[in-house]
Amino acid sequence: MDNKEFALQEHEKWAGKIEVISRAKLDTPEDLAVCYTPGVAEPCIKISEDVDLSYKYTRRHNMVAVVTDGSAVLGLGDIGPEAGMPVMEGKCCLFKAFGDVDAFPLCVRTKDVDEIVKTVSLLAGSFGGVNLEDISAPRCFEIERKLKECCDIPIFHDDQHGTAVVTMAAMLNALKVVGKKIDEIKVVTSGAGAAGIAIIKLLISMGLKNVIMCDRKGAIYKGREGLNKEKEEMAEISNRNMEKGSLADVIKGADVFIGVSAPGTVTQEMVRTMAPNPILFPMANPTPEIMPEEAKAAGAAVIGTGRSDFPNQINNVLAFPGIFRGALDVRASDINDEMKVAAAYAIANIITDEERNAEYIIPNPFDKRVAKAVAEAVAKAARDTGVARI
Amino acid sequence: MDNKEFALQEHEKWAGKIEVISRAKLDTPEDLAVCYTPGVAEPCIKISEDVDLSYKYTRRHNMVAVVTDGSAVLGLGDIGPEAGMPVMEGKCCLFKAFGDVDAFPLCVRTKDVDEIVKTVSLLAGSFGGVNLEDISAPRCFEIERKLKECCDIPIFHDDQHGTAVVTMAAMLNALKVVGKKIDEIKVVTSGAGAAGIAIIKLLISMGLKNVIMCDRKGAIYKGREGLNKEKEEMAEISNRNMEKGSLADVIKGADVFIGVSAPGTVTQEMVRTMAPNPILFPMANPTPEIMPEEAKAAGAAVIGTGRSDFPNQINNVLAFPGIFRGALDVRASDINDEMKVAAAYAIANIITDEERNAEYIIPNPFDKRVAKAVAEAVAKAARDTGVARI
Repeated sequence: MDNKEFALQEHEKWAGKIEVISRAKLDTPEDLAVCYTPGVAEPCIKISEDVDLSYKYTRRHNMVAVVTDGSAVLGLGDIGPEAGMPVMEGKCCLFKAFGDVDAFPLCVRTKDVDEIVKTVSLLAGSFGGVNLEDISAPRCFEIERKLKECCDIPIFHDDQHGTAVVTMAAMLNALKVVGKKIDEIKVVTSGAGAAGIAIIKLLISMGLKNVIMCDRKGAIYKGREGLNKEKEEMAEISNRNMEKGSLADVIKGADVFIGVSAPGTVTQEMVRTMAPNPILFPMANPTPEIMPEEAKAAGAAVIGTGRSDFPNQINNVLAFPGIFRGALDVRASDINDEMKVAAAYAIANIITDEERNAEYIIPNPFDKRVAKAVAEAVAKAARDTGVARI
Repeated sequence: MDNKEFALQEHEKWAGKIEVISRAKLDTPEDLAVCYTPGVAEPCIKISEDVDLSYKYTRRHNMVAVVTDGSAVLGLGDIGPEAGMPVMEGKCCLFKAFGDVDAFPLCVRTKDVDEIVKTVSLLAGSFGGVNLEDISAPRCFEIERKLKECCDIPIFHDDQHGTAVVTMAAMLNALKVVGKKIDEIKVVTSGAGAAGIAIIKLLISMGLKNVIMCDRKGAIYKGREGLNKEKEEMAEISNRNMEKGSLADVIKGADVFIGVSAPGTVTQEMVRTMAPNPILFPMANPTPEIMPEEAKAAGAAVIGTGRSDFPNQINNVLAFPGIFRGALDVRASDINDEMKVAAAYAIANIITDEERNAEYIIPNPFDKRVAKAVAEAVAKAARDTGVARI
């Protein structure tokens, strides 16, 4: 049986990857009278007097909604809300297994930005946070921005920020391996989707000065014709030398390549034109922009991909469980840039100076220390920036 | 420590009465590759080709949303969405314990009918059914009606239909105890809320001809001034003899009293004016319209209340877990009257002719046979009426 057939069979056997269980004992009439009527009236009354007590008397303190409209599911694209649900359920399993966060999948039968915002905001009292997932750009930006404005709980689009945090963690250690500094290097990225934009923004916030974003037409620069709103904004904050041309043109002399685009985007020829000891993160899934062995043969010093079968897997599961764990632990009202940066450093610092090498710049996804370290760092950053509420 | 304080402490200890767990094993990279990427792509693709497969590859087939706006919580009234959540979580615990149904609580931060309808309908792809809960009348009727129109999954307002089903079950057996027939008796009810209306409609559908509904102003009849839309409709279908006056006036000669109103509504004097061997279901919670010992002293032959500390507890938990279990088992598109009637008979028939007596007309809430019998009867009725989809 091939892997695809096996995955289908397993999904059929699971009959759904999540389950909602009762934490209350319900064996006797006395149990019923405490868990339900008349006992349940007491926490209801307390919450009606102080709505914050919903974090004490209900599961809200540990509950995250995983929300999609099914418009950008994995590499499959717009396959519809119900079809996105296996991914959402899987995400909920990861939340529980890695962060002890209760997460519940919700698919929304609309692609209208305001309808999605309205739906999620009306449900915000049921949750301690919202993880947006597999929503296509540019709508994902607007949805996230509007939800952050109207909700009193953290809103986090993992495809953007989770990817950015883990990429940043990998980059911190990769730069140490090759002995370069972030404010002195040139970074070129391929892919102008949600992840690509978030990665650049986070890298800039930690000191990166020279970065060029490429889409299918090549380098994005101020004044290039036909840019949408998001790319115009990127043109403002990146490519300060106004480099023009194809990816092959602008990758020349670059210290780092980050790919969130498509297989075959990068050739060995291109790698050979990069600066000495180049770092490559070709993260397209399942087939990277350039295969690691090819990149290595062309001179790449450090390589990270999205895949588990190569060294240095840049995997979001290193970030989101710990980030939400930390945010929930201090009842954060937001997950801000400081918290994301703290998460990236926490992930990178799991690896000691002695351990760190070109094939070990990022912890294993099953490294149990990661989520705990991330949660503590994120909680501290939340307190330091005033968004912690307990 | 008193009961209220104990209930609060238990709720604090539980730290939320529900929990979302993973049904998938996540111990190795191989597990991750099946549960999440790349394996998860396969069920996604299958569902995108046939959306009904979401019932096969995700938890939808067993998942019910428990939805409230917090506007009519227990006897507490409009205490707000978050304050209603302890009840919703409790309901989810009961769904799991009694029906093996996964249920998830959602509170909606609006009381606007169309906003609630829109929110729930946009989420319908995430669930196999929706249980509406503690939403005030008359909005609950409109919300239910509109959701039934626009959703392809069963919509069930338990405060109406669950209560009606269990009341009907109790009545079926009570009538046998006193040797009366439903089409020959006179029933008087007190309380014109959601439950009162649903009870009368269900009893009429099973043959009741003479029924009078009373609100605080007395009997509701065609042409009475100041009736709202719902009461006007009830005036059309009930009180065929156009009886007027107070509850004390119209209860004279009645065979059955059903109370879903307030303590003290019924006096011993009034019971003495009823027909011989009267049946009384004073179900106001926590204090009945008349206390059982008083009703008995005044001549009541059969008495049922909402309380666990008296015989014959008329408790919704006898109905909703089995009803949804049956509806989900056949992937019903609706929970129709035939399914409710089937549920009522299934509950009543748990008690044999030999067992049945004035103090045992309704099974114990912990009688494990009930949910199974209800589920089977409901599934059969769904198939018989063409709403079963598998």
